Amino acid sequence: MKENKIPYKTYLDESEIPTKWYNVRADMKNKPAPLLNPGTLQPMTAEELAPVFCEELIAQELNNTDPYIDIPQEIVDFYKMYRPSPLIRAYFLEKALDTPAHIYYKFEGNNTSGSHKLNSAIAQAYYAKKQGLKGVTTETGAGQWGTALSMACSYFGLDCKVYMVKVSYEQKPFRREVMRTYGADVTPSPSETTAIGRKILADHPGTTGSLGCAISEAVEVATSTEGYRYVLGSVLNQVLLHQSIIGLETKTALDKLGVKADIIIGCAGGGSNLGGLIAPFMGEKLRGEADYRIIAVEPASCPSFTRGKFAYDFCDTGMVCPLAKMYTLGSGFIPSANHAGGLRYHGMSSVLSQLYHDGLMEATSVEQTAVFEAAEKFARVEGILPAPESSHAIRVAIDEALKCKETGEAKNIVFGLTGTGYFDMVAYQKYNDGEMTDYIPTDEDLAKGFAGLPEVNL
Amino acid sequence: MKENKIPYKTYLDESEIPTKWYNVRADMKNKPAPLLNPGTLQPMTAEELAPVFCEELIAQELNNTDPYIDIPQEIVDFYKMYRPSPLIRAYFLEKALDTPAHIYYKFEGNNTSGSHKLNSAIAQAYYAKKQGLKGVTTETGAGQWGTALSMACSYFGLDCKVYMVKVSYEQKPFRREVMRTYGADVTPSPSETTAIGRKILADHPGTTGSLGCAISEAVEVATSTEGYRYVLGSVLNQVLLHQSIIGLETKTALDKLGVKADIIIGCAGGGSNLGGLIAPFMGEKLRGEADYRIIAVEPASCPSFTRGKFAYDFCDTGMVCPLAKMYTLGSGFIPSANHAGGLRYHGMSSVLSQLYHDGLMEATSVEQTAVFEAAEKFARVEGILPAPESSHAIRVAIDEALKCKETGEAKNIVFGLTGTGYFDMVAYQKYNDGEMTDYIPTDEDLAKGFAGLPEVNL
Repeated sequence: MKENKIPYKTYLDESEIPTKWYNVRADMKNKPAPLLNPGTLQPMTAEELAPVFCEELIAQELNNTDPYIDIPQEIVDFYKMYRPSPLIRAYFLEKALDTPAHIYYKFEGNNTSGSHKLNSAIAQAYYAKKQGLKGVTTETGAGQWGTALSMACSYFGLDCKVYMVKVSYEQKPFRREVMRTYGADVTPSPSETTAIGRKILADHPGTTGSLGCAISEAVEVATSTEGYRYVLGSVLNQVLLHQSIIGLETKTALDKLGVKADIIIGCAGGGSNLGGLIAPFMGEKLRGEADYRIIAVEPASCPSFTRGKFAYDFCDTGMVCPLAKMYTLGSGFIPSANHAGGLRYHGMSSVLSQLYHDGLMEATSVEQTAVFEAAEKFARVEGILPAPESSHAIRVAIDEALKCKETGEAKNIVFGLTGTGYFDMVAYQKYNDGEMTDYIPTDEDLAKGFAGLPEVNL
Repeated sequence: MKENKIPYKTYLDESEIPTKWYNVRADMKNKPAPLLNPGTLQPMTAEELAPVFCEELIAQELNNTDPYIDIPQEIVDFYKMYRPSPLIRAYFLEKALDTPAHIYYKFEGNNTSGSHKLNSAIAQAYYAKKQGLKGVTTETGAGQWGTALSMACSYFGLDCKVYMVKVSYEQKPFRREVMRTYGADVTPSPSETTAIGRKILADHPGTTGSLGCAISEAVEVATSTEGYRYVLGSVLNQVLLHQSIIGLETKTALDKLGVKADIIIGCAGGGSNLGGLIAPFMGEKLRGEADYRIIAVEPASCPSFTRGKFAYDFCDTGMVCPLAKMYTLGSGFIPSANHAGGLRYHGMSSVLSQLYHDGLMEATSVEQTAVFEAAEKFARVEGILPAPESSHAIRVAIDEALKCKETGEAKNIVFGLTGTGYFDMVAYQKYNDGEMTDYIPTDEDLAKGFAGLPEVNL
C-alpha cells in the first residue's frame, strides 16, 4: 500500500453540501440549440411546454444565462439523507494495476435508488409538489430513474406513475418491487392504458417495448390527466443542472485535498451523470481558467457521440415530444440487447452534444465484454460491485491508468461511479458463464436509424 | 425538521478506525460455557479444534481473558475500503413518528456484501492466509456471509468453497452470482460432493436443505481436504470479537456527539451483529461504569432466546461439530419459511446466551408482517431499503420511540441497521402483494426440537 496522506474516502461535511446548482450553459459561448415545436419547427416557449412539464422546471430548462440557481432548503434537507457522497481514492485499484496514476472516483451509488438519479428526482418532485400537482408520470428502462423518482415522490406524498419498458418489467421484477415498496404505480410499456401504447401494440404485437415508446406513454398520461406532469431523468438541461451537485462536491473535495484533475471520465447515455460530474470543471475550461481532458464513454452498441449525427431529432418513438438537437442515432434506432440499460438511448443531452461538437470534450466507445472484465476487476479490488453503466467509465479509467504505467506519468484520473450493480446480476451471470457477446452496429444498421431523422435537418 | 446540531450522518475519520477488537468475555464474571467434544463431553482443546479452524482463530475463540486484541494492519487497511460506517441520526423517522425520542442507527450495509458480515470475513480470511492455507469452506443461507467471505478470499487470493442452502441457491440466484463474481465456488446443499450430503439426500430425497446441513458439508470438506479449514459467520466467540468494531465505532461516534445511549437494539440470529454492536456498552455495564437497556430482537418463528432452552446442543444437523451451550430450539427444529434467512438458526452465541441468562440484556420476538410494515415505513422516510433481518431491530426501535411519544421522554435509542434488502425483493413482493403471513410455532412444535437435545444436559 502506498503511503496515504490522502484518505481512502473523502466525505465533505453536511454544511458543505452545495446550496446552488451550477448551470454550465451560462458559460457556453455556443448555447445548446433550443427544443423545437415539432409542428411549427419554432423554439418551444414556456407556455407550450407548460402542459408537459412543471413551471419552475421549464424556467430552468430555458435558462441559458444564470450561472447559479439556488437549491431550495427542502431539497438540501433531502440531500442530507444520502449526500455528500464520498470521493474515493482507488488505492486498491492503483495497486492492482501497478500504475503511477492517482485514481479517484465519485461514488453516487450508496442510496437505495442505487445511482445518481436521485439528485434530480428529488428536485423534480419538489417543484411538482410546490406547483400543487397530484402526481407525475415517467418512463424507466433499467429502473434506476423509476426507483429514484418513486423515492422522491414518496417523500413529498406525490403519486408516481412509472411506465417501465416491458422487457425490464419482466426481467427485472426486483427493481419493480423496490418502486412498489415506495408506493409507485408501475405499468409495463407498451400498455393498453394509452392510445399510443394501444397503437404500438397493434402495429407490433409481441413487442417488448423501448425507452422511446415508454416516454410517449408517460407524456400522454401526463398531458391528459388533471394535476399531472411528466418528468424525465436524463437528456434535459434541467437534469444536468440538478446533477451538477456531483461535480460541485467532487471539485470541493479535490480542492480540499489539493488535487488538480488531469482527466475526467464519465459514462454517457442521455448525459445526466457526465453532464453533472463535469459541470464545474467544464465551466473553468469555458472561462479559460483551467484545462482538463474530459472523456465521455458510451457502449459500442449504442454509439451516439462517436458514430451519430449532430441533428434535430425526435426524443421519443411516438414523436409527441419536442425536437432536440443532439448527437443521435435516430429515434428509430434499436440498440442490440446490451446489458447497460441506462446507456441505450438513441440521443444525447443537447448541452453535451454542443460541447462535444465544439471540441471541448472527447468521446470513446467500448464493448461490453471489456466493460464487464473491468467491472469484475474493480469489484474484486475496490469492494464495490459496479453497475454496468458505470463500468464503462471504469474501463476507460483503467485504460488511461495503464497508459500512465507505460509513460510513467502520475496523472490524476477522476471518474464517476454512478451506481451499483445489485439489480444487474443477470448480466453478471452471463459474464460469469462466459456467454456474454459484443455487438457493433454496421453502417447499414446506422443508416436505417438516420433515415428516420426529421426533415427539419434538410 | 428539528434544528440539528447533530449531523444526519456521523463519519469517523479513517484514523479513528479501531486498531483493537474488544473481547467482552474478559469482563464477564460468568464466562460463556466452553465448546464440548461431542465424544468425550470434555471442553475442546486448541489441538482438537485445529483440524477444523485456523490456529489464530482458535486462540481467539478460547481467549476469555484479554480485553483487547490487536487488529493486524492488513485488516485495518481492508476496513478502510468500507469503514468507518456511518452512525445516522434518524431525523426523518423521528419526524414521521412525531416522537421526542432521538433515534440513531449504525448502518453496516454500505458495502457490496450488503451487511456487517464482512467485518469478520476479512479477519478470518487473513488468518487463513497467514497460516499458509489454500482455501476455506463455509455455508451460507441467505447469502450475506457467503458474499462477504467471497470478497475477503478474493482479496487475499484464497480459494472459497461455499455450501449454499439449496432453497436459497435456487431462489436467490443473484447472491450466488455475486459470490461467483468474486471467484467463489458455490455448491447447493445438500450435495453429492460430501458423505453427509449424500446421506441426507438418501434419507430425505427432495430436501431443500438447511443451514445445519450446509455446515456439516462445509466442515466435512474442510477437514478432509489438504490446506483447507472451515470458517463460520456467526455464533462463535471469535466472530463476536471481530464484530466488536461495530460497537466500538458506535461508541466513539456517540461520545464525540456527547450522546449517552439509553436503549440499544439489535436483531439476533446467531448473534454476530448484536454481539458486536453491544460489546463496549456491555463492557461498561459489566464493569459497573454505565447502564443501558439492551434488547435482542428475534423472529417469532424462530424464538431461541424467548422460548428456547439454555442447554448444550449440536451446532449442525450432521452432529459433526462441537457442542455449544446456548439458548437453542434444538438442532432438529425447522423454522417456518420466514423471510429473514439470517435469523433462522436454531441456536444463539454462547456469549450472548450467558449474558441473557445473567439478566444483563432483554429479548423480544416480533412477527414478520409487523417487521415488513416497519421496513416499508423506514425505507420511505430514511431512504434505505433495509434487510428483513435488520428490520426486526427497526420494528422494536419504532415501538420504543412510540412509547417515548406516550411518556414524553426524549430517550436516545440506538439500533443496528445490519444490511440492505436489495437481494430480498421476493419477500418485499410478498408484502407488497398482501400475501405475507405470520407463523408462531406451537409448544408441540418446540417440544419436537427440544427432544433432540443431547444427553449431556440430563
